[in-house]
Amino acid sequence: MEDNSLKILGSCAALPAMKMNQSAYSLEMNAKTFLIDCGENAQQSLRHYCVNHSKMNHIFISHLHGDHCFGLIGLISTLDLLGRRSDIIIHSHKGLEEALRPQLNFFCNYLHFKINFETFSPFSSDIIYENEKMSVATIPLKHSIPTSGFLFQEKPHRRHLKADKAKFFNIPIEQYKYILAGEDYTTPDGTVVPNNVLTLPPSPQKSFAYLSDTAYNEKVIDIINGVDLLFHESTFLEKDRARAKQTFHSTASDAARIAALAHVKKLVIGHFSARYKDRKSFLEEAKPIFDNTFLGNDGIEFRF
Amino acid sequence: MEDNSLKILGSCAALPAMKMNQSAYSLEMNAKTFLIDCGENAQQSLRHYCVNHSKMNHIFISHLHGDHCFGLIGLISTLDLLGRRSDIIIHSHKGLEEALRPQLNFFCNYLHFKINFETFSPFSSDIIYENEKMSVATIPLKHSIPTSGFLFQEKPHRRHLKADKAKFFNIPIEQYKYILAGEDYTTPDGTVVPNNVLTLPPSPQKSFAYLSDTAYNEKVIDIINGVDLLFHESTFLEKDRARAKQTFHSTASDAARIAALAHVKKLVIGHFSARYKDRKSFLEEAKPIFDNTFLGNDGIEFRF
Repeated sequence: MEDNSLKILGSCAALPAMKMNQSAYSLEMNAKTFLIDCGENAQQSLRHYCVNHSKMNHIFISHLHGDHCFGLIGLISTLDLLGRRSDIIIHSHKGLEEALRPQLNFFCNYLHFKINFETFSPFSSDIIYENEKMSVATIPLKHSIPTSGFLFQEKPHRRHLKADKAKFFNIPIEQYKYILAGEDYTTPDGTVVPNNVLTLPPSPQKSFAYLSDTAYNEKVIDIINGVDLLFHESTFLEKDRARAKQTFHSTASDAARIAALAHVKKLVIGHFSARYKDRKSFLEEAKPIFDNTFLGNDGIEFRF
Repeated sequence: MEDNSLKILGSCAALPAMKMNQSAYSLEMNAKTFLIDCGENAQQSLRHYCVNHSKMNHIFISHLHGDHCFGLIGLISTLDLLGRRSDIIIHSHKGLEEALRPQLNFFCNYLHFKINFETFSPFSSDIIYENEKMSVATIPLKHSIPTSGFLFQEKPHRRHLKADKAKFFNIPIEQYKYILAGEDYTTPDGTVVPNNVLTLPPSPQKSFAYLSDTAYNEKVIDIINGVDLLFHESTFLEKDRARAKQTFHSTASDAARIAALAHVKKLVIGHFSARYKDRKSFLEEAKPIFDNTFLGNDGIEFRF
C-alpha cells in the first residue's frame, strides 16, 4: 500500500532558480492534502502539478523566512477565485498572522472562507494536529531563527478481517469491531476461534518527516527514527561547509548522515542553493553515506 | 533608433497559467529600467528574461489588486540577497504602504536599501516622475477599483550637429549648445549660417502608454494619442463581453478600437484571462480593427 505521497512544489533555497520555486511541498496522507511551507509561486506549482487543493485545509509553515511563506497571500487569493468555500488553518510560529493579516484585510476582504492562524512553540516537540487516522508533531530544528520540522505519522491501523473466515464462522457484524481490535471470537457453542485465524495483521503505520531549514542536528534522530520517508534540507555541498555552518544549513552529507543514523527508509534532499547549476553532485555526496537518497526537484513525487 | 523596449514578465489576468505569470512589465527607456506592476513571481521573470534590475529604481503600480502587486515582497527580498544597495521608490495609490509595511518590517528588516512609497491620485492625469530625458504621467482608467495607466514620454531631443559642417565653419565648441538648441551661427566675418545647414532634425520623442486594468474608455484617447507603443489590457474575447462589462475589463476588440482611435503606432495586448487556452483568437479579433497588434505573451520584448 503506497497511497501516501510527497510532491515537491519548490526545490530552491532563498533564491528561486530558472522555472523552479522556493520551498513548498504537498503531502497526501490518508486521503487528505497538507501543504508544507509556501514559498512564492506555490499556487502555480499546486495547479501545474495537479494537486487537489480542495481537500487541503491545513498549511504548516516551518519558520518565518520569506522563502517559506511569501506564497500564502497569492495562494489564498487564487483559491477564492477558484471557488473555495472551506476554511484554512495555517500552523506557524507566532508572528505570521501579524505580518499577513493587514495584507489579507486589504487585498482579500472579499474571501468566501476564513483563514485561521494557529501557533505552536519552536522549542518543544508537540502534536499540533490530529485526526482519527494520523497526527502531526513538531520537531525543533537548529536554524538562524526559530524553526520546526514536522513528523506526519499514521495511527495504528486495525487488523484486516478475513471475509471467508467471518462467513464460515457466521460471525455477526456487530462483533467485527472487537475482532478487528484483536479479540478472539467465541461461537454460540462455546468454541474459541483465535484472532489470528480470523484476521490478518494491520498495515504498517506510515510516517514522513520534514526537516527544513536546519544545520546538522542529531537531536532529531530519536523523533524521526525509522520513518518511511525523510525530507532533509541540503542547501550546500561539502565544499561550502563554512557557508553552511554560517547560515545554519546542512550539506548533502549532513542530510545523509542523519538519514543513516535514524534508519529511515528513504531520503529526499532539497532546498538547494541556486549557486549550484548541476544538482547531481548532491546525490554523489549523499549516496555513499545513505544509498536510498533521491533529489527532490520541482514536480517530483515520492510515494510511501 | 529603437533603444527603448517593453518586456512582458507576466501576461495573465487574475489567475496565473501554466508557466505564465500575472501582470508585470519591465520598460527600458533612456537607459533606465522601470517596473510596471509586480504580480507574484515577477522576480523569477525578471531574472529569467535577463532584465538589468540594478538600474531599476522606480516601480509603478497601476492599482491595488493582488495580481498586480503580490510579487513586491519577494522581489524586494531577492534584490537584497543579490546585493542591491540603492533605494527603490514604489509609486502607487494610497494603501499599499499600509498593507505592505508590516511584511517588510517583519521579513525584510535587514534590508540594505530603503523602500520609499510615493502615492498619486487615481482621479487626474499628473506627472509623477521625471528626469532630464523623460516623464511619467498617470492616466485615469475605468475599473472596479481606482486604477491608473501610465504614459512614459521622452522630452524633446536636441538637434543633431553635422560634424563635417562644424569643422568646415570652424565653430568653437562653446557655441554647440546654442546651435543644438536651434540657433543659427554667425561667423567672425558676420556671415549667418542657417541652423538647418549645421544640424539634422532631432530624433522623434518616443512614448509608451500602459493601460491595465480598464473597461473600454474613450477618455484616454487624447492622452495617448500617437504613442509609439500602447499596451492595452485585453482580458476577454467578444463572446464574453457580458463578463468583461461586469468586471470592468476590455475585450481584444475594445483594445484595438482604442488603438485605432488614438492613432498609436503599435498595439500590444495582454492581461489574458486563464479561461482561454489558445490566445490566437485575441489577435484574430483585434487585427481587423487595428492591424499592427501583437500578443504580449510572457518573455516577449517589443522595441520602440
